[in-house]
Amino acid sequence: MYKVLFLPHNKTVEVKDGENLIRAAMEAGVHINASCGGEGVCGKCRVRIEEGQIEGGLSEKLDEKDIKQGYRLACLSHVKSDLIIRIPVESQIDTSSLNLKTAPRQKARIEEVSFEDLKTDDGFDLPVKKILSEIPRPEASDNVPDIPRLFNDLKHNHNEDFLDIDLPVMREIPNVIREKNFVVTTTIAQAIGEHSKDLIINVQAGDTSDKNFALAVDIGTTTVHGHLIDLLTGETLGEHVDYNRQISFGEDVISRIMFGEKPEGLEKLQKAVVESINRIINRLIKKTKIAIKEISAITIAGNTTMIQLLLAINPAYIRRSPYVPAATHYPPFNAVDIGIKVDPHVIVLTYPGVSSYVGGDIVAGIIGSGLYKSEKVSLYMDIGTNAEIVIGNREWMVCAACSAGPAFEGGGIKFGMRAAKGAIEDFAINPLTLEPMNLTIGDVRPKGICGSGLITIVAELFEAGVIDNGGEFARDTGNKRIRQSDGIYEYVLAWADETQIGRNLTLTEPDIDNLIRAKGAIYSGCLTLLKEVGLTINDLDQIIIAGAFGSYMDVEKAMTIGLLPETDSGKISFIGNGSLVGAKMSALSNQIRKDVRDVLRRITNFELSETTSFMDNYVAALFLPHTDMGPFPKLKARLDRNRKNSSKETT
Amino acid sequence: MYKVLFLPHNKTVEVKDGENLIRAAMEAGVHINASCGGEGVCGKCRVRIEEGQIEGGLSEKLDEKDIKQGYRLACLSHVKSDLIIRIPVESQIDTSSLNLKTAPRQKARIEEVSFEDLKTDDGFDLPVKKILSEIPRPEASDNVPDIPRLFNDLKHNHNEDFLDIDLPVMREIPNVIREKNFVVTTTIAQAIGEHSKDLIINVQAGDTSDKNFALAVDIGTTTVHGHLIDLLTGETLGEHVDYNRQISFGEDVISRIMFGEKPEGLEKLQKAVVESINRIINRLIKKTKIAIKEISAITIAGNTTMIQLLLAINPAYIRRSPYVPAATHYPPFNAVDIGIKVDPHVIVLTYPGVSSYVGGDIVAGIIGSGLYKSEKVSLYMDIGTNAEIVIGNREWMVCAACSAGPAFEGGGIKFGMRAAKGAIEDFAINPLTLEPMNLTIGDVRPKGICGSGLITIVAELFEAGVIDNGGEFARDTGNKRIRQSDGIYEYVLAWADETQIGRNLTLTEPDIDNLIRAKGAIYSGCLTLLKEVGLTINDLDQIIIAGAFGSYMDVEKAMTIGLLPETDSGKISFIGNGSLVGAKMSALSNQIRKDVRDVLRRITNFELSETTSFMDNYVAALFLPHTDMGPFPKLKARLDRNRKNSSKETT
Repeated sequence: MYKVLFLPHNKTVEVKDGENLIRAAMEAGVHINASCGGEGVCGKCRVRIEEGQIEGGLSEKLDEKDIKQGYRLACLSHVKSDLIIRIPVESQIDTSSLNLKTAPRQKARIEEVSFEDLKTDDGFDLPVKKILSEIPRPEASDNVPDIPRLFNDLKHNHNEDFLDIDLPVMREIPNVIREKNFVVTTTIAQAIGEHSKDLIINVQAGDTSDKNFALAVDIGTTTVHGHLIDLLTGETLGEHVDYNRQISFGEDVISRIMFGEKPEGLEKLQKAVVESINRIINRLIKKTKIAIKEISAITIAGNTTMIQLLLAINPAYIRRSPYVPAATHYPPFNAVDIGIKVDPHVIVLTYPGVSSYVGGDIVAGIIGSGLYKSEKVSLYMDIGTNAEIVIGNREWMVCAACSAGPAFEGGGIKFGMRAAKGAIEDFAINPLTLEPMNLTIGDVRPKGICGSGLITIVAELFEAGVIDNGGEFARDTGNKRIRQSDGIYEYVLAWADETQIGRNLTLTEPDIDNLIRAKGAIYSGCLTLLKEVGLTINDLDQIIIAGAFGSYMDVEKAMTIGLLPETDSGKISFIGNGSLVGAKMSALSNQIRKDVRDVLRRITNFELSETTSFMDNYVAALFLPHTDMGPFPKLKARLDRNRKNSSKETT
Repeated sequence: MYKVLFLPHNKTVEVKDGENLIRAAMEAGVHINASCGGEGVCGKCRVRIEEGQIEGGLSEKLDEKDIKQGYRLACLSHVKSDLIIRIPVESQIDTSSLNLKTAPRQKARIEEVSFEDLKTDDGFDLPVKKILSEIPRPEASDNVPDIPRLFNDLKHNHNEDFLDIDLPVMREIPNVIREKNFVVTTTIAQAIGEHSKDLIINVQAGDTSDKNFALAVDIGTTTVHGHLIDLLTGETLGEHVDYNRQISFGEDVISRIMFGEKPEGLEKLQKAVVESINRIINRLIKKTKIAIKEISAITIAGNTTMIQLLLAINPAYIRRSPYVPAATHYPPFNAVDIGIKVDPHVIVLTYPGVSSYVGGDIVAGIIGSGLYKSEKVSLYMDIGTNAEIVIGNREWMVCAACSAGPAFEGGGIKFGMRAAKGAIEDFAINPLTLEPMNLTIGDVRPKGICGSGLITIVAELFEAGVIDNGGEFARDTGNKRIRQSDGIYEYVLAWADETQIGRNLTLTEPDIDNLIRAKGAIYSGCLTLLKEVGLTINDLDQIIIAGAFGSYMDVEKAMTIGLLPETDSGKISFIGNGSLVGAKMSALSNQIRKDVRDVLRRITNFELSETTSFMDNYVAALFLPHTDMGPFPKLKARLDRNRKNSSKETT
């Protein structure tokens, strides 16, 4: 066994001789960017060996200077002694930009959801509500026991009948009711099923009915978002984002599932995401100064795998044909039972999902975006490694998921990275000089390209004629930024000395190819799903874009590359984290929870892999913007004009 | 702080200077008999100081020889140094006789309950039943998730709808259903409330429906009885009894409640009774070789305080006016949640009670004895420190509890002890010589008198004219066994060298007085309750005697002293541990569980302390057998005959 120390994290792990270094890092819970899954292809997992011996680790992705300085690819390195390993800045995960309040850069309308709509005269129809009781004291002539005494008051004075109660709450009651002279506040979790009973989850001494808070949480594969909500006003008192700590065990859903199949893998993944939630709660409590005991419930939305991992339910069968999850609905449960550090009474309500790949996050988005009650025929998209697509309105809904690959999250892109500090997120090209204008997150020197940046860069290069509709660079510009390196054409976005990483930051032809495949899959998914319901793109009344990636995406550029169908930008709106919006709505309204059930009864899930037209649509979409320029008239007009100008100049 | 080592237990505890020695023993979990509650009155807590200094501990209950040998009363001793204390055999608790299979000595019919009556053609209507499912495998065309897939089978093929399920069971399902090719056995706990749902508590791979076991447990204040039942046949496969380990923290209900109010007291009491249950389970598993994972449920009956202590619900308010318990019904819960060492799926069903002092043990007895469905007007009595009385039939029922004091369990009786090895349990006197014939439990030399022995001794002495109807010894017999010691009249049952304890074993006048008070309270309770419903003793069609003490009581002698009304002994039957019988019936039949609810709706509880006639009846009953000899015609005839014979002899 050898000891491996990871810097700057200062975490040590013991591994056996020959262990893969990236697995050792996973074991230690140290994140190293590695988007290719450990095949040595992406070159992202550069680490520096500061002490000790490894075997392997060399790759064409490393230049001579790198190798001399001790850089190796972690995924190709095998431990042969005790080691000290330093993870360089570009291979690390950087949380500093997560909670930056920058305005999303999209150029379309943001859907603002008003929670006031959920209010009736009496307030919100809360899933977890508080009731104040003044109970008559027991006497010799009225010696009903303590607990039925409380139940009698709830029944006769508050119309709350058929209540369940668990042992831990029962235990508190004899002391609690006497603490403030038989005045108590009961917290009741309302059931939504016809055959289910409401549950008493807490009994507090005295009147605490003026304090009732909840958390709404969205568990994404990459990030976890939490909002602390005042259930009496609907106001969000604080919000916080953290990386999903599972990221150290795999970047995408499939690698998480695979890690979960290892011994103790499931347990580690479960603890990791709970750690993220606990950090968020801790931060929100500090920010808002709310007493943690006044939190009553946590509503959590996430994709099907994230929810199974949260609940420690092995998601192995999600990635195996016929791709069945354990369930799509889960009953409420106590937060402490899965390790969330709140008071024991706090219950967790999880958002139900549709299928293995259309999860509760999407259902929450359907609710959060208002799609489920709109007359408009809407296209709802959440774009990431997996893109989920919903089409429908208040009468019908269809949905599907398609695997876009990791390009939008920086995977398979030579200098791709997540939307973190130093990522190029906006870009413009001078069509004459082909000189770039790079804008980075945090306005620092660039160290990579995030998904939204990638779309804009490719769109700009395409419109400027630097790349053609097949994604190939113009071979004959004579411009020094367009060059061949190791036989691969690339565009130099920033020279080594302009970057944080000390290397030329480029966009390569394989990068463009990966982006085209990703956008092609999504566009094909939309077309296929539309065809299944007998519609075309022109029938869409609105397009709702959800997700962190979508929020930062320039929709005009997304239309230019054919990720989105070309449409009036007035038809496009952004919901941001639609999953979180839906979670908040559910946290405030039991009617919304019933609406969710109703949505699930009405929605039809399509498996695109089972749909023959999907592959045809996909192949046709593997061009910029598409083999068929018909649906892209505005772009066609611009390109024609550019070509004319360009030929004017050259002539 | 001083260290106190208790021998022969070899348990050490640290206590502060001046701590009472009996409290130190409690703290250490070492049992010392102490029936007077630590006031130095009973003289039972003799211990020998082998090393170290104590303060106090002297008492007239100790003779000079005792004191010279280092004997002190623990309850009067205060720790003044590190100590080594030996608990002599007579002050210890002795489990050896608990599981002896001796025939009860009563001279009346034993009610034998047939569980076959509970069977229908299909078997028992089990509260926790197993269902075998062969589930269709998921396919691309049928990719319903795992858990709803199981639910669909249960609904459509087994008519099980509206099922609840908890997270831990859900977690197992994806793996379990695949383990034996989608053949699974589901264990369902049936609800009994109209508005409650059945609960899936376990899903096992393959067909395990031929193995389904349950435990029925009676938690008495003194002993805990467990039966392991085959739920398919109704057969009891094994039984075991242990002392309730709480006994070290107090002998009766009130001292337990008081101990529970101390810091950590409730926790200690809860752990102690669970330890008893775990020992019993452990023994039953070893005896029967049943796999512990095949146990599905535990049905537990006990008095109201015992159940609250088991559930760790503070019973403090049970002993304070107006004497309200926390509840009389508790929902089913997981056995592991209270520390019972079984598989996590096992649920506990507790027997509901009536009030603070008429608990689930009595309700179980009402069921177990068949009283609740009999046409006969019945008197059901469970005699102990608290005696519970039920009068009624299938149409109406009344109940009450009265405090008899500890005499029947050996408390307040100079040489009183529990029904353990060496206790005089039967006795006859030669009316001429007044020489005794002592029979002891285990047929060993006597060391004390148990409750049933006490009744027989007093009855025999009374009929022989050794004591009069006021409980006083004849002053002028000249017999050496009847003598005065320290001014107190006593009868010598065994001379020092005939005993295990090396002291003369006697019955004293104060002992007789205590017995008369105990039996007077019970008799008065019966009369008072009868009067409340407008009946008299002559209206009773049967008397059912429950409880360990009752089983060993000689009913003829009990009538002689006026504990029981004089009646045809054919009207008397013994149910033994009626609570356990009821628990077994509930374990086998959900219909019985519904009947229990029904009993609770029909039964009326009387507080004797609130009933004015109780005290009058009590005072009238403070004679042997009673001030009014009218209801005791047979005894009167015998006494008259004896008197005639006796006067014949003397003339």
